[in-house]
Amino acid sequence: MTHLIAIGGSDAGISAALRARELDPSVDVTVVVADRYPNFSICGIPYFFSGEVQPWQSLAHRTSADLEATGMRLRLDTFATDIDVSGRRLAVRNPDGSTELIDYDELIVGTGALPSSAGITGLDALTPDDGLHVIHSMGDTFALDKYLTDRDPKTAIIVGAGYVGLEMAEAFTVRGIAVTQLQRGPEVLSTLDPELGALVHRELDSHGVDVKVNTTVKHVEKTATGLTVSGLEDGEPFTRTAELVLLVVGVRPNTDLLERAGARIGAGGAIAVDDRMRTGLPHVYSAGDGVTTHHRLLGETYLPLGTTAHKQGRVAGENALGGDAVFAGSVGTQVVKVFDLVASRTGLRDHEAAAAGFAPFSTTAVADDHKAYYPGAQPISIRVTGDTRDGLLLGAQLVGRLGTETAKRVDTFATALFAGLTVAGVSDLDLSYTPPLGSPWDAVQVATQAWSRAHRRANNA
Amino acid sequence: MTHLIAIGGSDAGISAALRARELDPSVDVTVVVADRYPNFSICGIPYFFSGEVQPWQSLAHRTSADLEATGMRLRLDTFATDIDVSGRRLAVRNPDGSTELIDYDELIVGTGALPSSAGITGLDALTPDDGLHVIHSMGDTFALDKYLTDRDPKTAIIVGAGYVGLEMAEAFTVRGIAVTQLQRGPEVLSTLDPELGALVHRELDSHGVDVKVNTTVKHVEKTATGLTVSGLEDGEPFTRTAELVLLVVGVRPNTDLLERAGARIGAGGAIAVDDRMRTGLPHVYSAGDGVTTHHRLLGETYLPLGTTAHKQGRVAGENALGGDAVFAGSVGTQVVKVFDLVASRTGLRDHEAAAAGFAPFSTTAVADDHKAYYPGAQPISIRVTGDTRDGLLLGAQLVGRLGTETAKRVDTFATALFAGLTVAGVSDLDLSYTPPLGSPWDAVQVATQAWSRAHRRANNA
Repeated sequence: MTHLIAIGGSDAGISAALRARELDPSVDVTVVVADRYPNFSICGIPYFFSGEVQPWQSLAHRTSADLEATGMRLRLDTFATDIDVSGRRLAVRNPDGSTELIDYDELIVGTGALPSSAGITGLDALTPDDGLHVIHSMGDTFALDKYLTDRDPKTAIIVGAGYVGLEMAEAFTVRGIAVTQLQRGPEVLSTLDPELGALVHRELDSHGVDVKVNTTVKHVEKTATGLTVSGLEDGEPFTRTAELVLLVVGVRPNTDLLERAGARIGAGGAIAVDDRMRTGLPHVYSAGDGVTTHHRLLGETYLPLGTTAHKQGRVAGENALGGDAVFAGSVGTQVVKVFDLVASRTGLRDHEAAAAGFAPFSTTAVADDHKAYYPGAQPISIRVTGDTRDGLLLGAQLVGRLGTETAKRVDTFATALFAGLTVAGVSDLDLSYTPPLGSPWDAVQVATQAWSRAHRRANNA
Repeated sequence: MTHLIAIGGSDAGISAALRARELDPSVDVTVVVADRYPNFSICGIPYFFSGEVQPWQSLAHRTSADLEATGMRLRLDTFATDIDVSGRRLAVRNPDGSTELIDYDELIVGTGALPSSAGITGLDALTPDDGLHVIHSMGDTFALDKYLTDRDPKTAIIVGAGYVGLEMAEAFTVRGIAVTQLQRGPEVLSTLDPELGALVHRELDSHGVDVKVNTTVKHVEKTATGLTVSGLEDGEPFTRTAELVLLVVGVRPNTDLLERAGARIGAGGAIAVDDRMRTGLPHVYSAGDGVTTHHRLLGETYLPLGTTAHKQGRVAGENALGGDAVFAGSVGTQVVKVFDLVASRTGLRDHEAAAAGFAPFSTTAVADDHKAYYPGAQPISIRVTGDTRDGLLLGAQLVGRLGTETAKRVDTFATALFAGLTVAGVSDLDLSYTPPLGSPWDAVQVATQAWSRAHRRANNA
């Protein structure tokens, strides 16, 4: 009987294990999980802190019992220490501290990513008890929850204004904590062009979040009144003190195990994999936030996302059983809710497209989510990027209020990108229309038609 | 200077005129409109009756002044009576009753459709004053509005349970009118499979609409207490009386003008056009509800929809100026809001696909619109149709509550259909995810994966 080991209890590892059990119920599947919390939705943690999701157990996509009912074996609190590639054995440290070698036929590594510290000094001297927090695991979550319960802080500094940083700014604000949000770049949510990020900034402002952009944190230290962060704001010295500092400045791939086993490192310092999730090491696959991502427009890149980890894990699980599944590739689709605003993107922005050899041109249009005569119509800002040479759709960014179906409108662009449509081709799409929910030309088509008009004018100029 | 005449003030004619003026501001454009209401949103009429849209003038996509500001000339209350194809002259009857021949270089006919009467007898003897209504034009709208205002009816029979019939059932119910809705087929909204139509039926029930399916109306007559409809319910005689009868049993193409000019008739009795909206008559184009529709899966069909009319009109306007635009084709995407439910479809259902030579297989899955742990998650019922031979996606039907982004989720399927993806290919799409608005596998992918599993099981059985 084939014995498959998946390392990692998050999206990639569990998806691989589930797929293997789905395709062949006779395969023996072991999942090695470093903590006690397999298959938790890390993306849901901010909603635990906002109070919208309670208790924390609700954050499990599936319980351990659900997972075991599929026939997989879970080894919790078990840490994978070494891979003996030629011997096909995995060395693990058991919960009791003992070590063990487990034989495998096929191995799938989903060790994910680790929180980045962005070169900030002073962090090593601080603990969660001091008020310094990250939220990358359930362990981090419990530590922050305990701190909030025990200390009831009134002020927080969030370092970073990406997806999680913004969601946590909302969560803290909802709890009555005064938030200062520090962002290194010129605008929050740097995955969007600044003109759309500015809409998110305004939403944060209107809910009382004190946003400081162009602010780089260099150091954090404990002081008499809390934790003091220091750095530069617009090039000038900056300090700010709060009872709590949350660091959400991105992640780096957790490659230690596979690197020591001899795997190749690719884009972003992640483990290089092919489109079948093979690492190049015999019988060793890898998937998720620890590996490179095939991007349909960029080729090999590093773009850790939960949706991608699910897809890659599923491919790895199928191929580990002798299948020939292919990861079709990402187009970088992302969405975040910030208070009552939804911000999303897919594909490339100008500078990304230009760096990849495209000839990008972008325009922003504002179109109502539904017919203006029907009550409640709201504008959606849509920035379309296309190639000036062949009209190929390269990307789209959308910001609209909650309730405007912005999250699923980006999916229309994502699907069009996936299929290689042109910008003009989006106008040809047969999209749904009823006055309360759309327009005869949907907002996405109003935006692509605006791009075509501007492009024609630019060509004629 | 080229003189372009567009006949028809609705979607196709106005879209053609706008496109021509957009592409070449030097072109002389005349729009001949049979009534005084160019560019009104006929799809919005039910919301005027529900009271959500007031005053009626709000239903104009653009006012006459807006249209004239683009440089087009409007000839209102002017009826096109004959086309002299070889002489390139259009005969019209002016508002004062006089007739006139107008020279043109290029002609675009957008005369649309007329309400069907489904073979019901007795209609000729009845007028709006008697309580018999249709709502196909602004004139019909004013007549019904006057009737409602003057008579304040408490009971209504709606014959038909398609899009407009359902929207009017909601509008009348909101106004406090007791509605009986009669449907010939076995379930309401016959554009969906009955198992999904049943969800809409339940929504009507829960709002007090008295729905009678398998009920064919044969005759309508004036009686002492109102209008009495008679026919068969499940094959047994059926009569029902109400103060108002609204007939919404579909449309038939209004082809008279072009037929007399020698144009060929195609699918559904509509004017046959090619993908450039040419009628075959020199310098005569046609678009909208009066012409055949190229369906990407079916070829030539008749499928009158406002979205299609806009696209076809735009193509006709461009080609009349010497362009070479192509109508890329419909996939039959449609959506309707019925009280708090949204029902949508795109592509083909089993019987339609089988008739077209496909080997269809369909499954229904129910998936939450977003992560169940985040408050407010609601199930969406998604029925996927695919071809068992090559896995090609053939269609999808979705029913979900308002707020579940169901209308734009059908667009993901519509885009995938347009691009010729397989069912499995939908699972590969990189769709957006954040817990309040989606899942790592979006609901549409949960449904396509369910199709793939069921198909695999059926193959292995």
